[in-house]
Parts: sequence; C-alpha cells; structure tokens
Amino acid sequence: MIVRPHKHWLIRLFVWHGSVLEKIYSRLLLNLVLSVSVIFFLPWYEALGVKLTMAPFSILGVAIAIFLGFRNSACYARFNEARLLWGQLAITSRSLLREVKSLPAAQSEEINYFVNLQVAFCNCLRLTLRKQPVENALRPWLREDELAWVAASHAPCNRILLLMGNWLSKQRVNGTISDVLWRSLDNHLNEHSAVAGGCERITTTPLPFAYTLILHRTVYLFCIMLPFALVQDLHYMTPFLSVFISYTFIALDSLAEELEDPFGMEDNDLALNAICNTIERDLRDMNGEDNVPEKMKPNRHYQLS
Amino acid sequence: MIVRPHKHWLIRLFVWHGSVLEKIYSRLLLNLVLSVSVIFFLPWYEALGVKLTMAPFSILGVAIAIFLGFRNSACYARFNEARLLWGQLAITSRSLLREVKSLPAAQSEEINYFVNLQVAFCNCLRLTLRKQPVENALRPWLREDELAWVAASHAPCNRILLLMGNWLSKQRVNGTISDVLWRSLDNHLNEHSAVAGGCERITTTPLPFAYTLILHRTVYLFCIMLPFALVQDLHYMTPFLSVFISYTFIALDSLAEELEDPFGMEDNDLALNAICNTIERDLRDMNGEDNVPEKMKPNRHYQLS
Amino acid sequence: MIVRPHKHWLIRLFVWHGSVLEKIYSRLLLNLVLSVSVIFFLPWYEALGVKLTMAPFSILGVAIAIFLGFRNSACYARFNEARLLWGQLAITSRSLLREVKSLPAAQSEEINYFVNLQVAFCNCLRLTLRKQPVENALRPWLREDELAWVAASHAPCNRILLLMGNWLSKQRVNGTISDVLWRSLDNHLNEHSAVAGGCERITTTPLPFAYTLILHRTVYLFCIMLPFALVQDLHYMTPFLSVFISYTFIALDSLAEELEDPFGMEDNDLALNAICNTIERDLRDMNGEDNVPEKMKPNRHYQLS
Amino acid sequence: MIVRPHKHWLIRLFVWHGSVLEKIYSRLLLNLVLSVSVIFFLPWYEALGVKLTMAPFSILGVAIAIFLGFRNSACYARFNEARLLWGQLAITSRSLLREVKSLPAAQSEEINYFVNLQVAFCNCLRLTLRKQPVENALRPWLREDELAWVAASHAPCNRILLLMGNWLSKQRVNGTISDVLWRSLDNHLNEHSAVAGGCERITTTPLPFAYTLILHRTVYLFCIMLPFALVQDLHYMTPFLSVFISYTFIALDSLAEELEDPFGMEDNDLALNAICNTIERDLRDMNGEDNVPEKMKPNRHYQLS
Amino acid sequence: MIVRPHKHWLIRLFVWHGSVLEKIYSRLLLNLVLSVSVIFFLPWYEALGVKLTMAPFSILGVAIAIFLGFRNSACYARFNEARLLWGQLAITSRSLLREVKSLPAAQSEEINYFVNLQVAFCNCLRLTLRKQPVENALRPWLREDELAWVAASHAPCNRILLLMGNWLSKQRVNGTISDVLWRSLDNHLNEHSAVAGGCERITTTPLPFAYTLILHRTVYLFCIMLPFALVQDLHYMTPFLSVFISYTFIALDSLAEELEDPFGMEDNDLALNAICNTIERDLRDMNGEDNVPEKMKPNRHYQLS
Repeated sequence: MIVRPHKHWLIRLFVWHGSVLEKIYSRLLLNLVLSVSVIFFLPWYEALGVKLTMAPFSILGVAIAIFLGFRNSACYARFNEARLLWGQLAITSRSLLREVKSLPAAQSEEINYFVNLQVAFCNCLRLTLRKQPVENALRPWLREDELAWVAASHAPCNRILLLMGNWLSKQRVNGTISDVLWRSLDNHLNEHSAVAGGCERITTTPLPFAYTLILHRTVYLFCIMLPFALVQDLHYMTPFLSVFISYTFIALDSLAEELEDPFGMEDNDLALNAICNTIERDLRDMNGEDNVPEKMKPNRHYQLS
Repeated sequence: MIVRPHKHWLIRLFVWHGSVLEKIYSRLLLNLVLSVSVIFFLPWYEALGVKLTMAPFSILGVAIAIFLGFRNSACYARFNEARLLWGQLAITSRSLLREVKSLPAAQSEEINYFVNLQVAFCNCLRLTLRKQPVENALRPWLREDELAWVAASHAPCNRILLLMGNWLSKQRVNGTISDVLWRSLDNHLNEHSAVAGGCERITTTPLPFAYTLILHRTVYLFCIMLPFALVQDLHYMTPFLSVFISYTFIALDSLAEELEDPFGMEDNDLALNAICNTIERDLRDMNGEDNVPEKMKPNRHYQLS
Repeated sequence: MIVRPHKHWLIRLFVWHGSVLEKIYSRLLLNLVLSVSVIFFLPWYEALGVKLTMAPFSILGVAIAIFLGFRNSACYARFNEARLLWGQLAITSRSLLREVKSLPAAQSEEINYFVNLQVAFCNCLRLTLRKQPVENALRPWLREDELAWVAASHAPCNRILLLMGNWLSKQRVNGTISDVLWRSLDNHLNEHSAVAGGCERITTTPLPFAYTLILHRTVYLFCIMLPFALVQDLHYMTPFLSVFISYTFIALDSLAEELEDPFGMEDNDLALNAICNTIERDLRDMNGEDNVPEKMKPNRHYQLS
Repeated sequence: MIVRPHKHWLIRLFVWHGSVLEKIYSRLLLNLVLSVSVIFFLPWYEALGVKLTMAPFSILGVAIAIFLGFRNSACYARFNEARLLWGQLAITSRSLLREVKSLPAAQSEEINYFVNLQVAFCNCLRLTLRKQPVENALRPWLREDELAWVAASHAPCNRILLLMGNWLSKQRVNGTISDVLWRSLDNHLNEHSAVAGGCERITTTPLPFAYTLILHRTVYLFCIMLPFALVQDLHYMTPFLSVFISYTFIALDSLAEELEDPFGMEDNDLALNAICNTIERDLRDMNGEDNVPEKMKPNRHYQLS
Repeated sequence: MIVRPHKHWLIRLFVWHGSVLEKIYSRLLLNLVLSVSVIFFLPWYEALGVKLTMAPFSILGVAIAIFLGFRNSACYARFNEARLLWGQLAITSRSLLREVKSLPAAQSEEINYFVNLQVAFCNCLRLTLRKQPVENALRPWLREDELAWVAASHAPCNRILLLMGNWLSKQRVNGTISDVLWRSLDNHLNEHSAVAGGCERITTTPLPFAYTLILHRTVYLFCIMLPFALVQDLHYMTPFLSVFISYTFIALDSLAEELEDPFGMEDNDLALNAICNTIERDLRDMNGEDNVPEKMKPNRHYQLS
C-alpha cells in the first residue's frame, strides 16, 4: 500500500496512517511509563549506588544508529528490487503486446486472447505473492479449462507462461512468424519469467534473521535503559527525551521490517493492485479495446492497496 | 530545472536561487524567534527546574544525521535513475535513427516522418511526467488524425510507440528490411518503452512515506528543542548556532524531498525541456534537416527548465 | 539455513537458534567474568595510578562501528550475490524448459531425460559448493554411464552442462531446431554456466583476510579494555553495560563472518536444499509429470537447510 | 589528469601537485589568520560574555562529515561512471576492429580508412567534452570533405558515427556481410553511441546544485566559527588544530567538486589524452600498421593530461 | 595472493602474514616511542601552557573514520570489480569451449589448438597485468611463429584474441558454422576483450590521488598528535591506547592502498596464478584431455599467489 498525505510540512507532522506509529505506540507507551516511574524512584535508585552515565550510551547510540542504517539500506534495497521487478513487468508486457500487434497475420480475437493471458499472468503473480486464492480471481481472463489446469498447480504463474509460450509456438509452427521473430517475442516471456522468479526470490530468502534479531535486542534494551541514564541530568524532562529518542530508533527498526517483505498488505508495501490495474488499462488501450477498466483510486486514508 | 551559478567559492555562499533557502526560510525564522525568546525566558525556565543538557542531543544528532544520510542517498538514487533513463532515451533515439538512415530503401520523406515521431515521443513523455496537457504541445510533430488518436488515450506515449512500431512493420512487410534488421530496430523501440516505463515507475512508487514522515518529525522536533539545550552553555550565541545547525538538517531534509520527484519544476529537478531540445537538435542534425531548433539557454537566474 | 521464528517482537527477544548467540556466548561470558573482577580489583587498580577514561573509547567505538558497518555491507553483498545467482538458476531453468517444450519435434521421453539433467545440475552445484560427495546423490537423475563420467571429473557441473549441450546440438544437427532456436536455448546453458562460475567465485575469493583480522583484533581488544574504562563511572553496573556493548559489536562481527561464505550449513546461510527442491518441483510440474516431490518443510527449530 | 608520485608514505605527505592544496591554501590561510587573531582578542571576547563550547560543534562536525561523505560518494560515482564509459569505448573499439578484420572480403585500405574513423571518433569525443575546437585536431584522421561536414555540426561525434554506419551499410548492401553479421558489427556502433551519450549526460546534468551549496556554506561557516570554540580549551594550540580540522573538511569538499566534472583539465580528472593515445596504439597495432604512435608519458609533475 | 589461516577466533588474533602488520609496524613503533616520550616530557610540556583536550580529536576521529570508510569502500569496489572480471573470464572461457565442442565438423586437434589459445590468453592477461615478461611464459601454449608475433606487440592479449577470431572466421568461411553460430561464438571473444579491457582500466585509472593523500596526511597527523591529547587523562596508559587507536586507523588506510591495485603480488591481492590454473584445469577436463595440470596449493604461509 502506498500513502500520500498532505503536502504541507506542518500538517504532515500529525499524520497517523502510513507512518509506523500504529504499530509501535505500545512500545513507546511502555517507555513513557518507565521514564515516569524512574523519576519517582530516583532517590531510592541513587541510594543503591546505581550510577548510569551518558558516555556508554553515546557509544551505543552511534553504533546502533550505524547498524540500523545498514539494515535500513538492506531492507530498502529489497523494496527497491521489488519495485524494479514490477516496473519491468509493466514494460515487458507492453513491449510484448506491441510486437505481437505488429505481426501481420495475427487476428484480432487471437490477440484479445493473448492480452487476457498477459493480464492473468500479472494478477496471478500478485495473488501468489500475497498467498491469496487464485482460482476465482483469475476467472475473468482465462478459459474454464485453462483456469482449472492453471489453478491445479502449486506454481500457477508458470502454467500461464506455458500457455503464452504455446500461443507463440503455434504462430511459429503455422509459419506466421519466423524463428527470428519468435526469438524476439519469446524473449519477453523469459523476462516475465525473470520477474516472477525475482519476486519469489524476495519472499523466500528474507534478510538473514540474525540482523533483525540483534538489532531488535539492542534497540529495545537501549531504549529500556535510556531513562535510567537520562534521569540524573534531565530529571522532569526525562520522559520527553526518552520517548523522543526511542521513537527515532524503534520507528526506523519497525519500518525496515515492513519493507523487508514488500509484497504484503501493510501501509508501506507496494500497491500491487494498482500496478495490475495500470498494466491492464495500458494493454487494453494499446489493443484498442473498449472495456478499459477504471483507474484505481486511493481510499479515504490516501492508501492504494 | 538545473542551476549553475558563479564558480568562485566566496560568491556562491550568497546565492539564493537553486539552493533550498526559499523553501525553508520560514522554518529557520521560526527557529530564530524561538532561540531569541529562550534567552529572555531563561531565568524563568531555570526556576522551573527544567534541565536540558547536550548529551542526549549529541546521540540524537548523530542518529538523525545517519538516517538523513540514508534518505538522501535513496532520494538521490531516484534522481540518478531518472537522469540515466533520459540519457538512455537520447542514446537510443540517435542509434535508432542511425540504423534507420542506413536502410537502403528508406525514402527521405518517410524518414522525416519517423524523426517527427521520435521527437513527439520525447516531448510526450516529458509532458505526461509533468502532468501537462499533451494535445497542443504535440501538434508540430504529429499528423492531425494521429494527434487526435494519441491524445485520446490515457497513455499517449504508448500510442506514439505503436505508430513507430507500425512504421517499422510496414518496412518489414514491404520487404525493405529483413526480420533480422527489424529485430535490431524494434529493439530500440523496446528501449524507448523501457525508458517510459522506468520514468512512470519513479513517479508512481515514491519513497516509502514513513521515511519522509519519521525524519520530518525527528528533524523538526530536534530543531525546536535545540535552543533549550544550547542556551545554558552559549547564552547570547544560542540563536546563531541554533539556526546554523537547523539549517544543516532542514536544508538536507528539504532537498531530499525535492529530489524524490525529479520530474517536477522545482529548482533542483531535471531540465526535461532542455533534454528534449537537445534530442530534437541532434536528430534533425543527423537527418541533415535545415530546421534544427535553437539551443535552449538558461534564464537570468541561471536556470534551465 | 534460514530461520523464521515467531513474529511478535517480545517473543523474538528470547530466541536462541538462528541468532549468533550460540557462537559467541563464550566470548560474552569471558567479558562478564572480566567485568566482575574489575569491580573487585578497582581499589588496587586505582592505587596503581591506572586511569582509563571514556573519551578515547568514544573515538574508538565510533571508528570500529563504521568499519564494522563497512565489513557487514561487504559480507552481506556476498550473501546477496549468492541469493541472486541461485534465483537466476531457478529462472533460467524454467525458461529453458519452457522453450524446450515449445519445440514441435521434441518427444516426451527426450524431454524427461533433459529435465533430469537440469535437476542433476542444480543438485550437483549444491553438493560441490558444500564439498559433499556427488556420486550417490546424483544417481536418481543420471544414467549410470553418465554418472560415472560426471563423478570422475574435478568439476562435475561442467560435465553435466556438456551433456545438456550435447542434447541441444543433437537436436540442431537432426534439424529439429534451427541455428536461431539453438542460440536461444544454448544461451540458457551459458546462464547456467554463469551461475556455477559465480558461485565458485564467491567460495574461492573470500573477503580480503586483513579486513576480518583487523576488525577481530580491534573488536576483541576494545571489549576487553571496556570494563576498565566503564568501572570508574558505573561501578556495579559495569558488567551489565560491558556485556551489552560487547554483544552489539561481537554479534555483528560474528554474523558478518557467517554471511561471508553463504553456501555453508550455518544458521544464516542459504537454504540450498530447499531451493533445489523448489526448482525440481517447478520443472516437473511444468513438464506435467506425476512424480513431483514433496515441498521441503522447516524442522522444529524453524530451520530450512 | 592523473598524478602518481612517490610510493613511500613519508615522502607522500609533502607532495604538492595533484593534491588539492593549491586550490584551498588561500582558505586555510584565512583560517590561520583568524585563529591567531582569536587568541589575541580572547580577553575582550570573554568580557563580552560570548561563550562557545565544543558540544554543538561536535554535533555539527559529525553531521557535516556524514553529509560530506555522501556528497563524496556521489561525485566519485560520477568519476567512476566516466572511467567505465571510456574503458567501454576502448573495449568496444577493439572488438569492432577484430570483427571487421575477420570479414573475408574487406580490403586493407578500406580497413585503414575505418580505423581512422574509429580514432577520429575517440578524439572528437575528447575534444567536445573539453569544449576544445574540433576541426584542426581531427584533420589527421578524416578526409577533407568529411572533416568539413563533421566540423559543421553542433554534435560532430554523431556525424563520425554516421560515417562509420555508412561504411558498414555499404558492406551489407554489397553483400560482403550478411544481415546477421551487420547486426553484430552495428551493435558496436550503438555502444559507441552509448558511450558518447553517457559522457554528455555527465557533463549536462551536474550533481543537484543545492548539495554543493549547502555543504559549501556549512563547511565554511563551521571552519570560521571553529577557532572561537577551540580557543578556550586549547589557547596557543588553536591555530594548529583549527587549520588541521579545516584542511580535512575543505580538502574533501574541494576534491568532490573536482571529481564532479571528470572531463576537465584539473589534477584529479581523467587523462583523456592518454586514453585516446592508448586506443589509437591498440587499434593500429591490431591492424598491423607501422605508424603506431609513441606511448604518452607523464610530465615532470607525474601528470598525464 | 589470498591468505586463509586458522578458523578459531583466538588463534587468529596473533596471525602475522596476510594482515597488514608487516607493512605498518614501523609506523606503530614510531607512535609507541612518541607516546612514551610524551609521558616523560609531560611536566615540561604543561609548563609551556600547551593544552590539548580530547574534544577536537573526537570530531576529527569521527570525520577521519567516515572518510576512511568511504575510501575503503571505493578501494574494495576496485578489488571486487577485478574479482568479477576474472570470474567472468572463467565463465566465458568455459561457455566458449562448450559451444565450440558442440560444432559437428570441428576436429579434435583443431579444438586442442583452440584450447591452447584460450589458456594462453588467460596467462597473457595475468602476465601483462603484473608487468612480467610474456614470451617464455606463453611458450607451452603457442606455436613458435605465433609466439613471436604475439610477444612483439605492446598489447599481446589483443593479438591472441585476433588468433582466436581468425580460427572462428576460418570455420565460418569454411561453412562449418553459419553466421548465426559465429555470432554466438564471437560474442564470447567480445567478452574476453571486455575482461581484458576492464582489467587494464583498473590498473591505468587509479583512485584519484588526492583521496589517498588527504587521508594519509590526516591519519598520520592525527596519530602523531593523539598522544599529546591522551596523556593528560591517561598518563601511563597513553602508549597502550595511542598505539591501539593508531593501529585501527593506519591498518585500514594501508589495507585500502593494497586493495587499490588488486593485481599486484601483495598479501591481499587476487591469486591470479591460481585462477589461471583453475581455468586451464577446467578447460582441459571439459576437452577430455589427459594432461590436466595439478591443482595449485597454498604455500606454508597459507598463501596462494
């Protein structure tokens, strides 16, 4: 999902949806409660001879920020990889249709059938990445027998590609297209395959789990101990700064986690529905069809799913 | 838009256009007012027992700088991607025309028509990326019936590509070019399509919104609280250093936002008009035409749009 | 191996498998013992006039964090390269089979033989990367004479590729496929070769050894000296913070080492068995075979090998 | 220009050429003068109640270093892109000639003519990037009529490429080479075009100007205020450390600026003359000519232009 | 050269070969001597009113660490580029031979001759990169007349590529291979050329010299002044921490320098001999020859050259 709220910098500061605040407010509340209680227990705490100074926290803060920055880069790179792959799918779909339409012998209904396969492929990829059921969602674009065959597989995208490949081979065997043209067209199918494989790769090989874990542990422990170190200098201001610093660290940690799996349905994930909608609109428009679907609009929280 | 002011380092320091100062001076003014008032309220503020030391701000400052550095890299990468795509468009346009001109049977007026399509494509892409109306702007390069057909679509660039594809197929069907040559030429159309798709991808999938928001919040809150921490050490010097530090952080935050959408009309965005002008000049020059347009010049603020 | 434990942030903090804790707990214990003894020897230590302050450790801490961040990036890049290569293998295997299946003259049993070669190649690559014996493991997919010939080589993957190349050439010489089609198919073999070569490159050229060594030395020395500097400020809290800071640095150092060789059998390495299983399942499903193997499941520690 | 002075680390420290010292010594001198005068005015300065402590400078120093590091990466990436493009030109020139020489029907004098075009292209690109006049410099390699036609264009490189393309098309139309061979050869021309376009892209789209400006301002302001903060702690040592810190920041800022436009004639720019010389030597050597030019040697300041 | 010592973390700490200690111990010794003498001259030094505090060193330390991190990344990127190029050479050599072996009309002795050319190319590239004499080293793989012709050139690798290109053209002209097959095979020669060109590019365009110089100067000056700042806080502990911090900075500076030219014979450079050995072993094994050379083994310092 993609969120695009108000453009003015002042109004932005109070946005709730699309930031990760919804997810982390319980942790910040915990930090607030802790900070306040630390103020009350300060005399007892000092009597015990417990001393926490800012110096070690300064070292820790910088180190955690650097490592968090590294993990953010790695997670954002996954998000970006996903973005590039779906962009590539849109590009190669259009190029494939443009080349198909330039074949002299291709008949209009045959091309309509092919366009349906293309749209089915994109939607099938979207559904499998989000682990949603495929069969009913693909009915508009596939013939009943093909639908059954596609849905029976554990990898339905591959089967739709096989259907597209069959269509192309049939043209080659008919003599409609030469081997050279076939190669040019089939190359686009290879690119479809590469996009599907790339997306699977993102979902099946997550960031090494230990990165997430080490940073979770250090960030939370850091935020829990922070009030004890701040209280001696700041006293009544402790809760304020403790929650502020915790927000900075925990929010970025949490966002990185959201971006790690960019195909989910969370606020900062990719708007796959909207991309599929765009691809279908573009293909039908290029094919000169009348049934171009409506453009998908953001909901009232400015979200596209 | 691209800005290139005076080369001397001393004069540069006082440049106004093209820096982001225009955008952020209200925020810096706010910071200045706050810093000055903090000096006057210092006694009252100390009486309340409010204590803010620099130590937590030191941790925060480093962390925010690291995260801001990360967001800057990500936004600059988008700017760079856009730069590479438009460079690729210039390259592939020229290679396409060079190959078209080497076809023995191609006639001069046919090639002129094709060059017009190429120029129309670049300008159409520029206009759609900037959400400007297409129809009148493309009139110089398209035949009236084609113009109507192109402008009727929600994706006019695709339709211009279809026209170019039709031209190539016609040559192939005529026997002017073999399948092998057609593939070489059509490949350049695929690259055109990849550039258009890549640019759309940049505009439709912004940086995850939460990055912008988390950094906005932390940067502004940091700058607002800074004077309260600085005042005890610096006293009368507070406004000076507070505004200086705020400038460093807010200016970079603001620039990152400008670069995130590199196709806009802001000071640091790409000069798409100038690039389209260059492509047209190069193509017409290669085609030996007389009507090579003038080179676009920067305006009096050293800006190219 | 890939580990995916519980999704809730609180439960995660106490996970043992898949984090690097198993590997480094002896070093942390050592640090704990040292910190505790430093507290007891503090008076004697002060009497000697030994003074260690936090300032030099602050410089060192930042420098080490930056260099560790750099080494982590480099090691993660190797892990990522490996991930991309195996993803590429899955993609190219499927594209190759799709193209083979679209050849009109190809007979079903010939294709079954070819699919076996493809599966054998993936598994052979997995086994050679993990330095495991090849012969018995490959028996299910190769004819007995071919198996002997393949296993006799020091580079069995190359020989399986030669077998695949022979199959293709035979089709070309038979006239089943034209030179143009052959080139398209053979290109996928080149990609297989590129994946195998890329994986070998990762195992044979490690990160320059001095990076590992310099960081090992500085990290351990830093952690050993830390308690002596912390004790004067923190006293009884020394062991707690000393172990915490040491955990942050040593865990990341240790994880980087694990990722450097991503084909091993350690917790955060790639799950090559599962990838081979997926490729075989996909190929057999595309080929319409009945003997699609079961999907591999994580063991009770949530690990895939 | 590329500089390679003495290898020993001690001697290097006192090198003048090729470092950016020549450019920035006036700024460092200014800093020195300021630092010295600050020492003398310290009593008067303290009487005014002006207090500057190191804490805010510590935050600023880290933030500026991070942003400067980012800008350095971006500028170095431009330098590296230029390096890769010119390397690509050398590679594709040689591959093109190797393929041309393997054509059976190609005659020796025709190939000599083609080699001259290749050399002219490289030199023409060098000259246009450095905004130097083209006509006289290209005379050794072009026929007089061609030279006039090439020099008349605002984009002479394109016209040389057209000449090369004409040569190839002539071979194709003659029947000397088939369409398949033509495509292989013409592809190298596309790569030439991509190099030329890539280099233009670097010169026409500089780093967003605001990066340069924001950093200029913060770096200089930081260096100017530094002595006032240092003087209270360091007293007589102020000038020394102030100039040292300023050197670190200003030198890197200045080097980034030099690398931003890698085709200039400054000390750390690319040695385009030497690269053109190498390409010509390699091509003539491959073609078996006797007039291989001398290898270009560094001048007495170890510089290659 | 590549070094792989003992796997246990404790033993590693005392390794000498392959770390950069050999190179920098004289500089560390100098630092030690300085630190010790500073302790003795402390009273005299304080009497002079010289005061150096840690605060400016803290700023400098962070800034230098960031810039050193940037330079390390840039140098490691060069090392990595070299690693990828040689890996590409291994990949493309094997693919080329696989395709050559699948040609039906190719005779065994002709292929043996071609394999020799391939091996000669790899070794010739290794020798020219290391500026070692070519003639005797290449004798095992080239015919005497060819060897003389190759060694007479200033760019012997190009000439070996020309020999390979001639072999391929001969097959094309004979009619053994069609133009389409020739293009597939010749493409591998282009990749050989790209590897050679890429490696030359690395050696001829070093990292901008000013990076090396600025960092040399700041690192050494920083390390020299450090003891004066440390001594007031740490007294007798000064030499220990001063050498430790210096080790961290100087070792990384020195390693970056070693990686900058990855084709040398230093400890952390690429093991080109071993790579050439692997390529020859693989090619001869694929060709079914008996004279597969022995695998190269590390020497007693665990080094491969």
